[in-house]
Amino acid sequence: MSCFYCEKDQRLLDLMLPLAELEWADVYLFRDQKHPGRCIAALKGHQDEIWQLEEAQRNGFFGDVSLVAEAVSRYAEADKINYAIYGDKVSHFHVHLVPKKEGGLQWGGPFTDDLPKVFLEPQDFQAMGREILRRMEEIAAERKRTPPKHLL
Amino acid sequence: MSCFYCEKDQRLLDLMLPLAELEWADVYLFRDQKHPGRCIAALKGHQDEIWQLEEAQRNGFFGDVSLVAEAVSRYAEADKINYAIYGDKVSHFHVHLVPKKEGGLQWGGPFTDDLPKVFLEPQDFQAMGREILRRMEEIAAERKRTPPKHLL
Repeated sequence: MSCFYCEKDQRLLDLMLPLAELEWADVYLFRDQKHPGRCIAALKGHQDEIWQLEEAQRNGFFGDVSLVAEAVSRYAEADKINYAIYGDKVSHFHVHLVPKKEGGLQWGGPFTDDLPKVFLEPQDFQAMGREILRRMEEIAAERKRTPPKHLL
Repeated sequence: MSCFYCEKDQRLLDLMLPLAELEWADVYLFRDQKHPGRCIAALKGHQDEIWQLEEAQRNGFFGDVSLVAEAVSRYAEADKINYAIYGDKVSHFHVHLVPKKEGGLQWGGPFTDDLPKVFLEPQDFQAMGREILRRMEEIAAERKRTPPKHLL
């Protein structure tokens, strides 16, 4: 089966909305919004495991992850971000960025996808994406980095 | 409450066995060995979130994570490594490195800690640690890196 993070086809679009392109990562807003603001940063170019990334790619990718994670945290006013790279079945290297609130959903435990999904109205979902993008731009400016290329 | 990754006290030793010190990470073997070979790489120095790490520290830490992850994978003959940074309650930046086998425990889903724990006999647990350390040394040599400082 081909990789949907590479193909960027309907299988991917069913699960997430493209938000932005960074130098090393594609950024998506996850459709199941049980944890408001949850995003994915996927490596540009296919690798499965961290040791398969060239050093420059690994450094660049985690720099991008840092930017997205901080934007998600500012948007969600999170008390902690959970970062998870699983990929048993979809092995393309990608990080789930899941904002958690103290006392909120799954606080103190791993986030899971086996609870009922929460989908927003399309206009609210797009508005959330734009809000997160705005934080990404803000942080890119603070860090004197190239601004994200908008896909929304 | 003080941070046990900083204090390295009995709270930490109850959960994990110190294996090695790398330049940017302390490496531990997790006592609950449901997923044989599961390790933790914890940042040296206390930070909570990825964007709080200086660039050199972030690059160095994920370089160390890469080395440990590959060693765990070689030891466990894993089909995929899961990398998870949660820390809702123990916020010190640390990565769980969990080897998965196709068709094995929790393949295709997130690993969780709510199943019965599996503890090895002390001599078997120490032997596992030494085997993982041997792979870390092997990989450090391949990458022409400083060898890990053994703690076992």
